[in-house]
Amino acid sequence: MTSPIESLERQGQEAKVASRRLARLSTDVKNKALLAIAEALERREQEILDANNCDQIEARKAGMGDAMLDRLVLNSARLRGMAADVRTVAALPDPVGETYDMRILPNGLQAGRRRVPLGVIGAIYESRPNVTVDIACLCLKSGNACILRGGREAVQSNAALARVLSEAAASAGVPAGAIQFVESAERSLVDHMLTMRDTIDLIIPRGGAGLINYVREHACMPVVAGGVGVCHTYVDASADIAKAVAVVHNAKTRRPTICNALDTLLVHAGIARKFLGPMAQKWGEAGVEMRCDDRALEALNVVDAPGAKIVPLGPEDLGKEFLALIAAVKVVDSLDEAIAHIERYGSGHSEAIITEDYGAARRFLAEVDAAAVYVNASTQFTDGAQFGLGAEVGISTQKMHARGPMGLRELTTYKWIILGDGHIRPL
Amino acid sequence: MTSPIESLERQGQEAKVASRRLARLSTDVKNKALLAIAEALERREQEILDANNCDQIEARKAGMGDAMLDRLVLNSARLRGMAADVRTVAALPDPVGETYDMRILPNGLQAGRRRVPLGVIGAIYESRPNVTVDIACLCLKSGNACILRGGREAVQSNAALARVLSEAAASAGVPAGAIQFVESAERSLVDHMLTMRDTIDLIIPRGGAGLINYVREHACMPVVAGGVGVCHTYVDASADIAKAVAVVHNAKTRRPTICNALDTLLVHAGIARKFLGPMAQKWGEAGVEMRCDDRALEALNVVDAPGAKIVPLGPEDLGKEFLALIAAVKVVDSLDEAIAHIERYGSGHSEAIITEDYGAARRFLAEVDAAAVYVNASTQFTDGAQFGLGAEVGISTQKMHARGPMGLRELTTYKWIILGDGHIRPL
Repeated sequence: MTSPIESLERQGQEAKVASRRLARLSTDVKNKALLAIAEALERREQEILDANNCDQIEARKAGMGDAMLDRLVLNSARLRGMAADVRTVAALPDPVGETYDMRILPNGLQAGRRRVPLGVIGAIYESRPNVTVDIACLCLKSGNACILRGGREAVQSNAALARVLSEAAASAGVPAGAIQFVESAERSLVDHMLTMRDTIDLIIPRGGAGLINYVREHACMPVVAGGVGVCHTYVDASADIAKAVAVVHNAKTRRPTICNALDTLLVHAGIARKFLGPMAQKWGEAGVEMRCDDRALEALNVVDAPGAKIVPLGPEDLGKEFLALIAAVKVVDSLDEAIAHIERYGSGHSEAIITEDYGAARRFLAEVDAAAVYVNASTQFTDGAQFGLGAEVGISTQKMHARGPMGLRELTTYKWIILGDGHIRPL
Repeated sequence: MTSPIESLERQGQEAKVASRRLARLSTDVKNKALLAIAEALERREQEILDANNCDQIEARKAGMGDAMLDRLVLNSARLRGMAADVRTVAALPDPVGETYDMRILPNGLQAGRRRVPLGVIGAIYESRPNVTVDIACLCLKSGNACILRGGREAVQSNAALARVLSEAAASAGVPAGAIQFVESAERSLVDHMLTMRDTIDLIIPRGGAGLINYVREHACMPVVAGGVGVCHTYVDASADIAKAVAVVHNAKTRRPTICNALDTLLVHAGIARKFLGPMAQKWGEAGVEMRCDDRALEALNVVDAPGAKIVPLGPEDLGKEFLALIAAVKVVDSLDEAIAHIERYGSGHSEAIITEDYGAARRFLAEVDAAAVYVNASTQFTDGAQFGLGAEVGISTQKMHARGPMGLRELTTYKWIILGDGHIRPL
């Protein structure tokens, strides 16, 4: 009888072996496999929903809350949505094999870089079963093998999905072992997975800050992870009020619980009264609580915003990711002060300026250091599909390797290709 | 009195503050600073050589061997060489600010990536003082601040060089604090430096395998490091014998002690006798010891190679980095066997095939996974300057972020720039 750790080690070896064949698989075979997966997700709906039902029963027994439960639930519509996403990935261009920077060196050698898969991607994630499909399909398209470790709450659903995925992929000619799913819910397996640096080239944690920090601290291999998204929008003195209200409103309320949602609104003193009135009114209607510093309170005192929820700024509110209909509001005296504030409190995710001033826009773009820097647009656009990458495995707030949405290209690396004709290097 | 750790923390803060200004420095100012550094290295020769002399005296007292001592020694010629290298960096294109992948998205948003510096680079290295100049100047040109921790044997030399560099850079308008040198030789400072992930964005260790492994295991921030270079050259059945002998000879003997030197020679059985005769003769003249497997011994038995140093392959010789005039020699039956051998024993550094067969070349390039893959050229070309990058801080054998020589571009990251006109994201 093999222990869970031995099984995991074996899965790592299988993934590594498969990754070498995956790296050379034609785009054609990969796309056929993705289309077979999409078809199987729809055809084998009952099998997947039955497994999901088992997870739901367990979750309810364990007293899982409604919000969590909603993340776990699969149904026909969600499966069709997942299948549609897989077809989208099939339609994306294949990054593997692209050769770039190729040039003839002075000595006649030809040298350039060729894009190749990373190898084996490990993913550790929480309750949403769709992550299983997302990551497996993005890895497949980019020629990587994957080892998936989902949340224990979704273990039946994930196992069913992984089975459907593997079988459909194999039917199209994908090497066995390309998609590995870790079934055992044993906690120690995560720790062991984080030590497998000889087999796993990159770990992607997806979930709450607790999981992400744990993986970052303990992984022996590179980790690409988003983290907390503390996002600012700065309304400059020269902003167009109507645009500013619309963009700021969208940045906060479109989906308040995602990492690219606005947390702190910075407003130039010269426009505070004119802007904060209509903003407070708009936010009042949407139920957004405004936690205002003294100067913002003062500006709001003299404006008319019935229904606005205005409270004083608390000591912990700056630099906080609210993930709720709450925004910190602070008045600043200059673009410099806004940039300095973002530098101090931002988490390097998504930052925006609303301005009609060319110079202010140019400076904000140059000086703010974040994965995504916006002029006159909602920070909620930070997303692989929105940026034209097609899909993403996550959003990186790190600086190395990839920054912002991680799509197919970001799951690759390159190797140098050097073509000679008997070239030797002089001393 | 501040402790060495407090000083290091302060240096980290200063570097971080400087890095923000450095990121926005014009190419013009950076190039002027580099030219001022080159000039100061020559003008202040006496001051640098005096400091170096102190290091040499200490090193001799401590019984340092000749090879190590040679690495430590500076003289007029070496300083002029360093100055020339700095002028070369000044002449390289500035990677910062390049904007790419910029496109208009279907909703009219304009989005693309802009190349920006990483921030603060930490370097931990051993005895060669030229590393101080190399890394500081590549960081400066790429808009990064740096924190340099050299070997204790070279501490006086490095301190003098860092002083000369900082003063010259400041005279041209580089912000104070851009180049930080850690003077204290206290060992615990390295450990502390490896924890400073809030200030140091990337650590580059340069030195022996012990240092590199230590940094990899203990650093809390990303590390880019080369490691052991176990390099193969495979002489295919279709190889041109004269080219093969010349390239293999160069790959081993041009500089046997560097990481891109040949370690194992793989030879197709069909060409073994024809090729190994002249090869053994050439290597015999150069004093290269050939550690041969049985089939290679057999092939060499029947050829005429007076003076060749031929011994049987030892059990540890495959997968070994010799760093000396020694090569393992093994006969294989096919390209497949050669590729499988490299997969098993290679370290992902530099691998070459010598062949006149188009299909074999194409397969080798596609299937061998290493930072640099060659056809008909010496692996000793793996080098930033040779690849047209101008200069390098090291050669990465990792897959993430950068692979192979790390030049200026590899010391940068990117941020997404998104230009809108009041764009909000629909649900």
